[in-house]
Amino acid sequence: MTRKPDYVRPLDLRHGVIDMNHGAGGRAAAQLVDELFMRAFDNPALRRGDDGAVLDLPPGHRLVMATDGHVVTPRFFPGGDIGSLAVHGTVNDVAMMGAVPLALSASFILEEGLPLAELQRIAASMAAAARAAGVAVVTGDTKVVARGQADGVFITTTGLGALPVGRDIGGANARAGDVLLLSGPIGDHGVAVLSQREGLAFDTAIVSDSAALHGLVAAMLAAVPEGAVRTLRDPTRGGLAATLNEIARQSAVGLLLDEAAIPVRPQVAAACELLGLDPLNIANEGKLVAIVAPAAADAVLAAMRAHPLGMDAARLGVVQADPHRFVQMTTRLGGRRVVDWPTGEPLPRIC
Amino acid sequence: MTRKPDYVRPLDLRHGVIDMNHGAGGRAAAQLVDELFMRAFDNPALRRGDDGAVLDLPPGHRLVMATDGHVVTPRFFPGGDIGSLAVHGTVNDVAMMGAVPLALSASFILEEGLPLAELQRIAASMAAAARAAGVAVVTGDTKVVARGQADGVFITTTGLGALPVGRDIGGANARAGDVLLLSGPIGDHGVAVLSQREGLAFDTAIVSDSAALHGLVAAMLAAVPEGAVRTLRDPTRGGLAATLNEIARQSAVGLLLDEAAIPVRPQVAAACELLGLDPLNIANEGKLVAIVAPAAADAVLAAMRAHPLGMDAARLGVVQADPHRFVQMTTRLGGRRVVDWPTGEPLPRIC
Repeated sequence: MTRKPDYVRPLDLRHGVIDMNHGAGGRAAAQLVDELFMRAFDNPALRRGDDGAVLDLPPGHRLVMATDGHVVTPRFFPGGDIGSLAVHGTVNDVAMMGAVPLALSASFILEEGLPLAELQRIAASMAAAARAAGVAVVTGDTKVVARGQADGVFITTTGLGALPVGRDIGGANARAGDVLLLSGPIGDHGVAVLSQREGLAFDTAIVSDSAALHGLVAAMLAAVPEGAVRTLRDPTRGGLAATLNEIARQSAVGLLLDEAAIPVRPQVAAACELLGLDPLNIANEGKLVAIVAPAAADAVLAAMRAHPLGMDAARLGVVQADPHRFVQMTTRLGGRRVVDWPTGEPLPRIC
Repeated sequence: MTRKPDYVRPLDLRHGVIDMNHGAGGRAAAQLVDELFMRAFDNPALRRGDDGAVLDLPPGHRLVMATDGHVVTPRFFPGGDIGSLAVHGTVNDVAMMGAVPLALSASFILEEGLPLAELQRIAASMAAAARAAGVAVVTGDTKVVARGQADGVFITTTGLGALPVGRDIGGANARAGDVLLLSGPIGDHGVAVLSQREGLAFDTAIVSDSAALHGLVAAMLAAVPEGAVRTLRDPTRGGLAATLNEIARQSAVGLLLDEAAIPVRPQVAAACELLGLDPLNIANEGKLVAIVAPAAADAVLAAMRAHPLGMDAARLGVVQADPHRFVQMTTRLGGRRVVDWPTGEPLPRIC
C-alpha cells in the first residue's frame, strides 16, 4: 500500500460538507476517497488505487452482471438506508439469476453541501451490508454536482456473480403447471419508506424488509434438482403485481393466484388502506417470488421456511397456459379478477 | 423473445417527456425500456429481460471491473455527448488495466421533464459508441426523480473486461528509469466542454478527444514483451497533473517531465490562457499515459504513432527515485518546477 499524501489537515467528518473540489480530481477528491470511502470499504482490490479491480471467476462458472441506481428518499428509513439498500438491491438482482455474488462496484453522485457525516454513515452502512453479504465493494467513482442539481446522494451499484455452468434461471422459464411461491409478507419496504416520508406513525412500527437474499436462494437451490427452480425474481418497484406481469409476459403464460394466500402484515394492510395503496403494487426489498416445477414445490417451500428470510413463505398459486398472459387472482369472496400492471399515482423514489 | 405488451399507444418520441410513471415499475417503465432503450441497445443478453445478464469469461483470463458516473454539462458538446462519453470513459478504465472490454451495464437517473427525443439521441449515441468499441450494453436500470432533484440525465456505466492471466498493469508498477509516454495532445475534452458551456467561440473549433482506447492499448501491448508496459492511465478529471501525481504516489517514485515535449494544440493553449487554466489540469477523454521499461520505449512509441489514436504520441520524461514522490518538470526556460495536484477553482461536471 502506498503512503498517504500529506494532506494539510484531515477531512472534518463532523462538520464538513461536500464541496465542488471533492469532485474535481485533485487532492480533495483523493482525500475523500482515502479518508472516507477507503476506510469504510477497505479491501485489497480497492487499495490498489487503479481505475478498475481485478477479480477471478471460479472455474466452471459463467458471469452474471446486474446494475441498479438508488435514489430513495428519505435516505434513512426504518430498517435501512440508501447505503444498505444499494447493496441489497444489486446482490438480489445477481442472486435472482441463481448466481453467487462475487463483488460490487459503487458510483456516487453527490450534491454539493451534503454533510460528510451523513456520507460516512451511508458508506459505513453499505460496507456493513456488503460484509454481511460476503461481497466487497472493489471499485468505485465519485462525482459532485452543484447545489440543486441532485438531491443529496444517488448511488449506482453493479454486481458480479458466478453462475454454475448449466444453470438457467430466468423470467422466460415458467411453464404451465409450475407452482408460484413467495418468500414472505409483501409491502414492508415501500410502506416503511412512505410512512417515514409522510411523517406517519403507526401503532406498530413498519420496518423495511431490505435484505440480501442470496443465502435463501442457495438453500432453495440445494433442496431440489437443477432445473426445478425455473424463475426467481424480487418484487421491487411495482411490487408483486409488476413482477408477476413481467414473468407472465416473458414466459408467455398466465398466472393464477389465491388472494387469501398472499401474506401481508396487518399493520402494512392498515397503512395501505390509509394511504390508498394496494399492497400488490408496493415495493419489497427482501422478498422473492419463485416459480418451481410442481414436483419440487414442497421441498423448495420447506427450504424457504427453514431459512430466516423465508419463514413466512407461502404457495401463492400456479402457472397456467394463457395466450393473453393474464395474471389473475381468486379473491377472498370467491370471484376472479385480473391483477394488472400497477396504475394510478406512481410512488417515486422508493428505491 | 416475448411478445410486446399492447401499450395503449407508442411512446411519443418527438414531443414526449419523462414523467414519474417512467420510474414507477409499471407499464410506462416497461414501455420506456422496450421502445427506447431496447431499440437502441438490442442484444441477446438485454432481450432476455431478466434482472441481470449472463456472460462468459474466456478461458485463461481474469476479470476486470470498473465503474464511472457521468454528469457532464452540457450534455452535447463538440466531439461527443454524455452517452458516448459514458461508454468511452468506462471502456478506457477497463483498457487501462490491460484488459479487453467484454460488456457494459448502464444505469440512468432521469429528471422528470427530460424530453424523450433527447434521451433517445443519448441512447443512440451510447449504442453507436458501444458498437464501435465492440462491447454491448447487456443490462441496465432507470430511475426517475422529480423536477429539480437531478439535472436532466446522469449515467453510470460499469465495464467488465478480460485480463490475460499473468498480465499486471497498474499505477504501482512504475520503477526508476522507466520512460513516460503520452498518446497525444492534452486538454481537448475539457476545453471543448467548457467552451460550449461558456458560449465561447474560437477561430478553430476545439473538439473533445472522447474515444475508446482499448485498440490503441492492444497495439502497444502487442509490440513488446509482457511486463514491459508497467502502467497505463487515462488522464481524465484533474488532467495530466493529477494522473501523474497519482502514479507517483502509488509507485512511490518521482517523475521528471520535459515541458517542451508535452503536446498541446495551439487553439487549446490559447483557450486555456483566455480561461485562466493550465492545460496540465484539464480533463482528457481519449488520451493515455504509459510508463514502460526503458528498453521497450521506442517500440511502444512506434506502435502508438502507427495507431490513429496515438499519431501524436510523445516521450514526456522519465521515472526517477524520489522519496518525496514529486512530479517535476523541466520548463521551456530551463528551470525546474513541481507539478502539483490541481489546485484553484475546480472544473465541475466536465465528465
